Amino acid sequence: MGGYVLVPWERNRENAPAGLDVAVFDGHTKPPEASVLERVEFYVLPYVHFDREAARSSVRLLGHLPRLRAVQTLTAGYDHLVGRLPPDVTLCNGRGLHDASTAEHALALLLAAQRELPRWFAAQQRRVWEPEATGSLADSRVLIVGYGSIGAAIERRLLACDAEVVRVARHARPDEDVHPVAELPDLLPGCDIVVLVAPLTEDTRGLLGPRELGLLPDGALVVNVGRGPVLDTAALRAEQGRIRAALDVTDPEPLPSDDPLWTTPGVVITPHVAGGSATFYPRARRFVDTQLQRWATGQQLHNVVM
Amino acid sequence: MGGYVLVPWERNRENAPAGLDVAVFDGHTKPPEASVLERVEFYVLPYVHFDREAARSSVRLLGHLPRLRAVQTLTAGYDHLVGRLPPDVTLCNGRGLHDASTAEHALALLLAAQRELPRWFAAQQRRVWEPEATGSLADSRVLIVGYGSIGAAIERRLLACDAEVVRVARHARPDEDVHPVAELPDLLPGCDIVVLVAPLTEDTRGLLGPRELGLLPDGALVVNVGRGPVLDTAALRAEQGRIRAALDVTDPEPLPSDDPLWTTPGVVITPHVAGGSATFYPRARRFVDTQLQRWATGQQLHNVVM
Ligand SMILES: NC(=O)c1ccc[n+]([C@@H]2O[C@H](COP(=O)([O-])OP(=O)(O)OC[C@H]3O[C@@H](n4cnc5c(N)ncnc54)[C@H](OP(=O)(O)O)[C@@H]3O)[C@@H](O)[C@H]2O)c1
Ligand SMILES: NC(=O)c1ccc[n+]([C@@H]2O[C@H](COP(=O)([O-])OP(=O)(O)OC[C@H]3O[C@@H](n4cnc5c(N)ncnc54)[C@H](OP(=O)(O)O)[C@@H]3O)[C@@H](O)[C@H]2O)c1
Repeated sequence: MGGYVLVPWERNRENAPAGLDVAVFDGHTKPPEASVLERVEFYVLPYVHFDREAARSSVRLLGHLPRLRAVQTLTAGYDHLVGRLPPDVTLCNGRGLHDASTAEHALALLLAAQRELPRWFAAQQRRVWEPEATGSLADSRVLIVGYGSIGAAIERRLLACDAEVVRVARHARPDEDVHPVAELPDLLPGCDIVVLVAPLTEDTRGLLGPRELGLLPDGALVVNVGRGPVLDTAALRAEQGRIRAALDVTDPEPLPSDDPLWTTPGVVITPHVAGGSATFYPRARRFVDTQLQRWATGQQLHNVVM
Repeated sequence: MGGYVLVPWERNRENAPAGLDVAVFDGHTKPPEASVLERVEFYVLPYVHFDREAARSSVRLLGHLPRLRAVQTLTAGYDHLVGRLPPDVTLCNGRGLHDASTAEHALALLLAAQRELPRWFAAQQRRVWEPEATGSLADSRVLIVGYGSIGAAIERRLLACDAEVVRVARHARPDEDVHPVAELPDLLPGCDIVVLVAPLTEDTRGLLGPRELGLLPDGALVVNVGRGPVLDTAALRAEQGRIRAALDVTDPEPLPSDDPLWTTPGVVITPHVAGGSATFYPRARRFVDTQLQRWATGQQLHNVVM
């Protein structure tokens, strides 16, 4: 008896190569019956991080797939799967699928902070018209920490907005003008804005801590669309009034209602919605179609990370 | 006795060509004494539209300059000066100085609406973490109505965000793919977002009225960074729930506190702050320096509009 592929969208089953056995699991409705699960070889996890219960049960399902050979996440980050898969299972991530969506949200947060949108929206509530000059993105220098797939998409948008960009990744890439993260202390004092878009790893946890935040000039803005723990929240709160922040990811998530971060002056928060906007879904569906083609014909899958 | 130039910034006086008589009037402090005013030949109006009293008195000063030959505004729009200058006075505007600032604010409004920032900022007030998928700018089709200097700057930003752009101006420019405004009824049904950035003229007043708004698809977004009366506000309110709007300019301005537009669902308002952000000032100061050079050497001024 051949293997099964488990996909999140009906449309992927419809588009699947002839002869491939495909079942659908969207994360919300019941998983397929045991007779299917025990034959699943390739599992494409549904993109359900807006629904924590669904997210948990879609990961728990991994424990019921004895013939599993490959797993595909539709998220770019896979920190939540590290250590949860048998060593011989191939892991592929969603690198690239969220670039437009996440970069656009980073830009939205950055512009909202520079152009003081929260202030104007609050003035609208009070029905008062009190214009004043604001800061801008144009002419400012932005450090992108985690210059990868999404970082490059952010850069393209920032350059079109007449900002200057400085690239930082784990390792130096001299031909691409990418600085190694070790140079962060030299780079922070000269920038107006820092965008964090690095994955969560042992190295990136607390990457922007008291020392690093202290090196930023007065009024600097930190945007985090990577992972919450990359920014040391206590250190950020200690700098309130001096450093501003716009965060799509927090530590922990969901942010508890009594967390002081909610009301820290100069901090705006969105609830981890950067990657999952309308533009993500068509890209993700097409990508799953492509992976099924490759799976059916025995080609190497795209985006293998482990 | 030679003529005087009246400039808004001390730095322009310092940089002025040798031999030119220059006085400073910033719009807030007292104007120069009568003996100077009666010799002013070139008046650079201060950029004080955030302060209505200063704005009014800087325009009133025009009535006290008997030897006036040229006027420079630092705004791109000059509708407020039409009919207020003797016919032999040259009028120059600030075309180009606001491009980066205004285009960036248009983008900020557009992204805030697509990515639902007002909703997340309200959720932050209530300390609730309730993520959900939003719309996006990427993959959407944006009509730029008033494809001039600022329109082109907006386009550059939108293309970097993976949106599609359709250009509209008064007249067709076939080699640049610019549609004439007469084609608006054919173009509106096919677009997701309309950005208004046309000047206020007799032709543009009410350009987007009941009929035009009615042609937009459900959920469409109208962004106005041009002039308030170009959008028919009553018609917009009649479409509430169906059409969203993000407005930096309104009709009238300032918007009175009892105007129903403040609380129209789906409408966000900023108080005409698009053009005057941090990035504008250095550009404007440099531009005034250049105009003084040209004035002193008898060259044709830049940006003559009348
Ligand atoms: N908020 C959201 O909704 C959302 C959506 C999508 C993704 N994300 C997050 O964004 C992250 C990046 O995604 P991506 O697709 O751009 O990944 P990517 O293409 O793999 O790029 C990640 C970059 O981070 C750099 N990096 C790794 N460790 C670092 C360190 N210690 N210091 C500095 N830089 C470091 C890498 O540098 P090297 O190239 O030198 O290794 C690489 O350039 C994901 O891992 C995920 O956590 C968030
Ligand atoms: N919110 C703010 O803070 C702010 C800041 C700066 C400027 N503005 C406003 O933005 C306007 C545009 O500035 P700009 O520097 O981009 O001016 P611009 O370069 O002169 O461009 C104006 C464009 O509008 C088009 N236009 C004129 N009448 C039209 C009509 N009836 N229908 C459609 N399009 C029409 C023109 O078309 P043709 O080329 O065919 O004539 C031109 O392409 C200013 O006039 C000002 O009112 C607002």
